[in-house]
Amino acid sequence: MVDNDSHSEFLASAVEAAHKAGDVIRKAFYQTKHVQHKGTVDLVTETDKACEELIFNHLKELYPTHKFIGEETTAAFGTTELTDDPTWIVDPLDGTTNFVHGFPFVCVSIGLTIGKVPTVGVVYNPIINELFTAIRGQGAFLNGNPIKVSSQTELVSSLLATEAGTKRDKATLDASTDRINSLLYKVRSLRMSGSCALNLCGVACGRLDLFFETGFGGPWDVAGGAVIVREAGGVVFDPSGADFDITAQRVAASNPLLKDAFVDALRQTE
Amino acid sequence: MVDNDSHSEFLASAVEAAHKAGDVIRKAFYQTKHVQHKGTVDLVTETDKACEELIFNHLKELYPTHKFIGEETTAAFGTTELTDDPTWIVDPLDGTTNFVHGFPFVCVSIGLTIGKVPTVGVVYNPIINELFTAIRGQGAFLNGNPIKVSSQTELVSSLLATEAGTKRDKATLDASTDRINSLLYKVRSLRMSGSCALNLCGVACGRLDLFFETGFGGPWDVAGGAVIVREAGGVVFDPSGADFDITAQRVAASNPLLKDAFVDALRQTE
Repeated sequence: MVDNDSHSEFLASAVEAAHKAGDVIRKAFYQTKHVQHKGTVDLVTETDKACEELIFNHLKELYPTHKFIGEETTAAFGTTELTDDPTWIVDPLDGTTNFVHGFPFVCVSIGLTIGKVPTVGVVYNPIINELFTAIRGQGAFLNGNPIKVSSQTELVSSLLATEAGTKRDKATLDASTDRINSLLYKVRSLRMSGSCALNLCGVACGRLDLFFETGFGGPWDVAGGAVIVREAGGVVFDPSGADFDITAQRVAASNPLLKDAFVDALRQTE
Repeated sequence: MVDNDSHSEFLASAVEAAHKAGDVIRKAFYQTKHVQHKGTVDLVTETDKACEELIFNHLKELYPTHKFIGEETTAAFGTTELTDDPTWIVDPLDGTTNFVHGFPFVCVSIGLTIGKVPTVGVVYNPIINELFTAIRGQGAFLNGNPIKVSSQTELVSSLLATEAGTKRDKATLDASTDRINSLLYKVRSLRMSGSCALNLCGVACGRLDLFFETGFGGPWDVAGGAVIVREAGGVVFDPSGADFDITAQRVAASNPLLKDAFVDALRQTE
């Protein structure tokens, strides 16, 4: 029942929704510095909620039979189970710490899964005006231009991205920095930019060669980016080397040439 | 002999030079992905050299009695001693790893010291079109709009930036990740964006609250950014808490409210 024409329509609808939310984020981004601390936090929550509502309303009106999973609604109403139905998985504002601080790596992430497979992806950074899009089987694009993953074949020449995460218990933090230490011997350098969805898009357009993160918020951080990486010729997998599970809060991505060496390097740090 | 009028003239000249170099960098930035690996490295060296020549020629013609220190000429001819004379200190392309990979944090950094004091600073990112400028005693600006450091007072709410550096010997790398581990218990999160000059500007405009780096290339990485941070109301100092030494390859920056707590935290990691 779901054909390529409707996929293109889904993408166009998601892009419209992302632009609407992006306008709200852009305005609020430049206000965060002018409000008190309490105000800043409220501004994040308000922007997050306003954007999710805006995106869901836009898509629900067009696709009333589809299902919806969003960071804000999930936080409010508990986990929503992912089914085989067409399901929109939305992070209205990825990179909230960046948003609070005015660091320009923030984005809207919208993914559509069909049969649990990421099928349409939109990741939009309204601050530096970069729109990443993909439809399964039809390639990936940055502002309308085709993108592809890097052709890097050696870890030692590769640029790695990961994140420090939000957990600060000793076991998690020590494991995380031990892993960074071990990987830094093997790669060229490390970037931490504070947005899981934009890290995936960084791999997709070849700015980054390697990305992994564990313990992030939920499927909304990866649903849009996963199809964008794959359509750019990349691979998305579990950091253990197992198949990617969109609900597992664990993700790794690279070009296909680097995957085995990357998984080996990640395993040695466990 | 050097008055405020001439400072404004120096800034205008430096901005002209930065724009010229920025045009070259922007063109090359979008080519790096289309050349072979050997070609990529050559493109970096060529762009670096071409930009330094362009900037030096522009400034030498206007200020034939001034002195000049640049990353490329220093690499070729050995260290140039910093004197009390007006001295232009130039990094024609900061963030070379980002340049090679197409990660959009690259910049031209131009600083002018007079009596060894950073007096004029220009840092220009031609990819996302951000121009940071400052003249000692006259404030700091981003694309012409006044900027100031954050008003954050607590480490726990602060966004920290540092870099993994380029040294991969065990002592340096272990010390570096131990330090990151220790600091992550105390701050909100960590960013690594791959450009020392842009990290300083990030502190200046309040996107980042804290930045430190040791072992970077030379005074060209900090000469432009130092005056921009100070004119935005921030402080630039040695990570030990001692006075900033532009030739020491050690730098830390924050707003004045965070300095003591930041220095304490850095000392505990030594």
